[in-house]
Amino acid sequence: MFTGIGKLRRWLPGILAPLLFLLVPKLLYADEPTAASNAKAINTIWTLIAAFLVFFMQAGFAMVETGLTRAKNSCNILMKNLLDFCIGSIAFWAIGYGIMFGADKMGLFGTSGFFLSGGNPSNGDGLWQYAYWLFQVVFAATSATIVSGAMAERTKFNAYIFYTFFISLFIYPVVGHWIWGGGWLSKLGMVDFAGSTVVHSVGGWAALVGAYLLGPRLGKYNSDGSSNLIAGHNIPLAALGVFILWFGWFGFNPGSTTAGTNLSIATIAVTTNLAAAAGALSAMTVVWMLFGKPDVSMTLNGALAGLVAITAPCASVSPGSAVIIGLIAGVLVVLSVTFIERVLKIDDPVGAVSVHAVCGVFGTLSVGLFAQESYGVAAGLSHGNGLFFGGGLKLLLTQATGVGAVMLWTIAMSAIVFLIAKATVGLRVEDEEQIKGLDIGEHGMEAYAGFEIFSNE
Amino acid sequence: MFTGIGKLRRWLPGILAPLLFLLVPKLLYADEPTAASNAKAINTIWTLIAAFLVFFMQAGFAMVETGLTRAKNSCNILMKNLLDFCIGSIAFWAIGYGIMFGADKMGLFGTSGFFLSGGNPSNGDGLWQYAYWLFQVVFAATSATIVSGAMAERTKFNAYIFYTFFISLFIYPVVGHWIWGGGWLSKLGMVDFAGSTVVHSVGGWAALVGAYLLGPRLGKYNSDGSSNLIAGHNIPLAALGVFILWFGWFGFNPGSTTAGTNLSIATIAVTTNLAAAAGALSAMTVVWMLFGKPDVSMTLNGALAGLVAITAPCASVSPGSAVIIGLIAGVLVVLSVTFIERVLKIDDPVGAVSVHAVCGVFGTLSVGLFAQESYGVAAGLSHGNGLFFGGGLKLLLTQATGVGAVMLWTIAMSAIVFLIAKATVGLRVEDEEQIKGLDIGEHGMEAYAGFEIFSNE
Amino acid sequence: MFTGIGKLRRWLPGILAPLLFLLVPKLLYADEPTAASNAKAINTIWTLIAAFLVFFMQAGFAMVETGLTRAKNSCNILMKNLLDFCIGSIAFWAIGYGIMFGADKMGLFGTSGFFLSGGNPSNGDGLWQYAYWLFQVVFAATSATIVSGAMAERTKFNAYIFYTFFISLFIYPVVGHWIWGGGWLSKLGMVDFAGSTVVHSVGGWAALVGAYLLGPRLGKYNSDGSSNLIAGHNIPLAALGVFILWFGWFGFNPGSTTAGTNLSIATIAVTTNLAAAAGALSAMTVVWMLFGKPDVSMTLNGALAGLVAITAPCASVSPGSAVIIGLIAGVLVVLSVTFIERVLKIDDPVGAVSVHAVCGVFGTLSVGLFAQESYGVAAGLSHGNGLFFGGGLKLLLTQATGVGAVMLWTIAMSAIVFLIAKATVGLRVEDEEQIKGLDIGEHGMEAYAGFEIFSNE
Repeated sequence: MFTGIGKLRRWLPGILAPLLFLLVPKLLYADEPTAASNAKAINTIWTLIAAFLVFFMQAGFAMVETGLTRAKNSCNILMKNLLDFCIGSIAFWAIGYGIMFGADKMGLFGTSGFFLSGGNPSNGDGLWQYAYWLFQVVFAATSATIVSGAMAERTKFNAYIFYTFFISLFIYPVVGHWIWGGGWLSKLGMVDFAGSTVVHSVGGWAALVGAYLLGPRLGKYNSDGSSNLIAGHNIPLAALGVFILWFGWFGFNPGSTTAGTNLSIATIAVTTNLAAAAGALSAMTVVWMLFGKPDVSMTLNGALAGLVAITAPCASVSPGSAVIIGLIAGVLVVLSVTFIERVLKIDDPVGAVSVHAVCGVFGTLSVGLFAQESYGVAAGLSHGNGLFFGGGLKLLLTQATGVGAVMLWTIAMSAIVFLIAKATVGLRVEDEEQIKGLDIGEHGMEAYAGFEIFSNE
Repeated sequence: MFTGIGKLRRWLPGILAPLLFLLVPKLLYADEPTAASNAKAINTIWTLIAAFLVFFMQAGFAMVETGLTRAKNSCNILMKNLLDFCIGSIAFWAIGYGIMFGADKMGLFGTSGFFLSGGNPSNGDGLWQYAYWLFQVVFAATSATIVSGAMAERTKFNAYIFYTFFISLFIYPVVGHWIWGGGWLSKLGMVDFAGSTVVHSVGGWAALVGAYLLGPRLGKYNSDGSSNLIAGHNIPLAALGVFILWFGWFGFNPGSTTAGTNLSIATIAVTTNLAAAAGALSAMTVVWMLFGKPDVSMTLNGALAGLVAITAPCASVSPGSAVIIGLIAGVLVVLSVTFIERVLKIDDPVGAVSVHAVCGVFGTLSVGLFAQESYGVAAGLSHGNGLFFGGGLKLLLTQATGVGAVMLWTIAMSAIVFLIAKATVGLRVEDEEQIKGLDIGEHGMEAYAGFEIFSNE
Repeated sequence: MFTGIGKLRRWLPGILAPLLFLLVPKLLYADEPTAASNAKAINTIWTLIAAFLVFFMQAGFAMVETGLTRAKNSCNILMKNLLDFCIGSIAFWAIGYGIMFGADKMGLFGTSGFFLSGGNPSNGDGLWQYAYWLFQVVFAATSATIVSGAMAERTKFNAYIFYTFFISLFIYPVVGHWIWGGGWLSKLGMVDFAGSTVVHSVGGWAALVGAYLLGPRLGKYNSDGSSNLIAGHNIPLAALGVFILWFGWFGFNPGSTTAGTNLSIATIAVTTNLAAAAGALSAMTVVWMLFGKPDVSMTLNGALAGLVAITAPCASVSPGSAVIIGLIAGVLVVLSVTFIERVLKIDDPVGAVSVHAVCGVFGTLSVGLFAQESYGVAAGLSHGNGLFFGGGLKLLLTQATGVGAVMLWTIAMSAIVFLIAKATVGLRVEDEEQIKGLDIGEHGMEAYAGFEIFSNE
């Protein structure tokens, strides 16, 4: 009897009986926390808190755009920033989220999940849909709100409302599907971790189209083609706005793991912070050298430039590379603002195109240059190494393909929407209203009742 | 020997020995994390972070109230908003928390836990008391701070200090005990998940009493009974305040689970956001239709109206219902502001009564209309379905009972406190001081030294 | 055969076989969450979120300092607050962090970890370095930014840039190493949980040296030695700044556990909040009694005084002691501001020295007076009891030693740096520039273009 089988028989109870104990937690304590349920909770609270921070960026954009324009248009800018979020929330709930993350159709758009129909309070996956939707809706609204600054001080309020509905409904979600929703660019291997292209360049290109079609503010250009400075009226608000945006970006980038159990959130927070700091420093230095003084608005935009640029590569590069990316972005934004104002002669009051489109493009390409496999792996990405780390040109070309496709799509679509608006409600307010201010003209009120304010132009 | 008992004897070691291993973690690694200790940590950090966000709402209220009133009274409003939190913190620590959550006395009030005596650094339950207290104190202070806006620009500072002490000490905690502390309304089955009634309507009713007893600001009403607009002096600050409040509400509502392991926090965040967006949209639309322009103040109040209304039902309704609740609240706030100003002729400078009392009542009742069992169950609530989902009138009637009882209690108690203040230190500043501004009169300083500001009235 | 050994043999399978099951999770589900991996995630997200909140304090400091000074110097103050964070980020990444937390050299400074070389995306410890660095860099920047307020309205921008580089590079990290990095004061048993001394007194002492070497603003002192009030230009911004700082302090103090699994974060949040509330109340009361009106600036500084004072003892004292510490700090700040202005005749426009140095010293000493073993143990501290709780003088003397050493080091080092700046680029702007405002002089722009603003001195 003492054969191998006999020995096994003697061990059998010891091997099988403990299996009963594996069932105990599930049987007796169905609601007790487990490692799996805790991980789900950690990921949910991380994603929600990140979404809250990104929501708060709406306040940041509102303050930056208000501060960098004139007092007589403040109510109008604030309303645009508030309303694009409100309209975006409803449009993205009803339609946009489904186009972005629904069942894929030919790699081009999604076709299910409208009205959050994938959400279900009765199970874990259904609950997760709500958290994920909230994180995505605040991104969609960020893309929409970028446009408001470039079109400041001369756009009809109802035309802006019209446009903002379509960017959240359709223009942004399609790009989102391509890159984040399983569409053709994601299949191609494009890496845009937190949205230099998806969010920022979409907003930036739409801003370019809008500002171009609108034409410049009265008094921006002289008859000889030279441009005048139209100073912002509240620099403390603008600075506050940049601090709020920087703060919110800690939700934007590290939150894009949508998982607190993915510890690369720490690396991402570091690269985000260093690029922002470097961007402000290099922008200040360049503007100081070029124009003789360390200009505040340009330094603020330098921080934003660094933040936009690091948004795509934040999970893929080392802190040292992040500093370099930020430094370059800070230089780029100063040159771009000058180029768009003086050469293209497009009037972008807050520099939105330079910050979001130009630095968005640079940031997306920088993945192809600076990516390191070790950082990507930690974040769950498999992009290999970029050009500067021995990885060849493939990744860079993929990134460039995505950048180009998104640029073409967004410029074409936003041109159509703005041209429809122009042909129907009209895009630009009357000159008289522009001189008086859009606060009175569009909203029948003043932003600073009681204060003595000089009218300029 | 090979009987059933014999077989059992052979299996016995296999069954009993593993029990030893169940003890191992506790014996050897007493400080090692377990699923239970992690869940406790998740719930603690969720509750604390939510409390921090709700604290920040104090800044939101301060900015909204400052922005929507005149420059000459800004220091006064800021001080009221700061001090009600400071006094509330001390009063709620010493007495209020014990009345709200202490051992129940006849369903009416609590009788233990004063001076945080339930807190104890040496054990888990004692540590949890501290987190829970922090979450509750910021709610108490929210209720108190609502009043300051309605009484703006004409109240004596020491009278306000006097009142704010009593609302945090006694008026609010008693209501809190009824609904959240195991009191009679909670036993009746009333559902007020995050406090449309407990927090907002208490603040709103006290605001109504205060504004009524004070009388209107000089110049608000003409001799024929018609009213004049007294414009706010800093709309950017007011808009910033609303963004901060919306941001903070993501702590207020989802945080009210006081558990990050309760994944319905995701659903709650979504309903909160959608109701706010819908409220802003409908308020803007109504005011645009009624008065010809999309007014900023009213749109801002629309967002707050949606937020206040969704506060009670946030964990009980679908996203679609949240949109409807928000839309209704946005309409209600416009009608209510107009009604209170023109018909009741009560001067509420920031619309606090309409936002917090009227929409607080509507939100509480909306649970009885829109509640769905599946959402409630996910959040740990057992309210069944509301009237529109086949649940009958019972829940609605319970909600109405709570609304009525809290209204009566708060109006009676705050009337007593304000009348005592009136009879002793006096409630209303002299007309001369009101004209000059309370900043000079009450605080001996100006809010905007160096700026040229027109005096109005 | 039925001997003891025989019995053991029968039980052996039951004891050994279950060991196989202990291996199962590791073997089969290597990436599945475990209690250990979840705890790591909880600690990482807690530390990161706390770091984000502390980062946001930069906005708070910027708003407080801008609001409490004159409109003509706003751009300059904002730039200083932005740039000290940017420069601090780079300097602390490259050098400072290594000096603070690198391998100890004689208890005096660290010698490794420069350029975040301890960070590594490929393993848990390496990832943790990134989170820890982010938490530390926002602390370093807080220390730097304190100085900007005391030196407001008369300092050359490039001199400030020069100084801020050195405080983040060297002055602050050395103190940090002494107390938090395993240096001599930590070995002595000094307790400075969240940095009343490390962060606030370092900033405060450097501020004192800077303000002293600069001399007062034009018009601050009359020829008879009496001083004039130079009113702040934007009290709403200053109040917003204090709310932001208070909000951020919930990251500063509770975050200093750098562990969300350490549940004493709840206690710490409570003591922090109560001390702030008490500080505002006592400062308001004292200033009301001394000068006849409840001054806003002083009340705001009272809240900050309470926050600075509770920063060292936040994890070591009861809520009741926190109230007492806050009350004392609020009195101290009023007396100190008056003393520094009238007796020392040093011009500190925002009261930074009183808030950060004086209350930082008091807070650090208060650990020696109010510490209770039970609170410390919960937070992982082993300081025993303070003087008032039967613990003798030892702890108090250790605290005093640390306070004195840090004062001497910081005063000496910052004097050297400021004197080098003075001898090279110069410290103080020309009188003409000071009269015109530093915004024009240093940055070529205005903060409030379009507003009519009186020039005062």
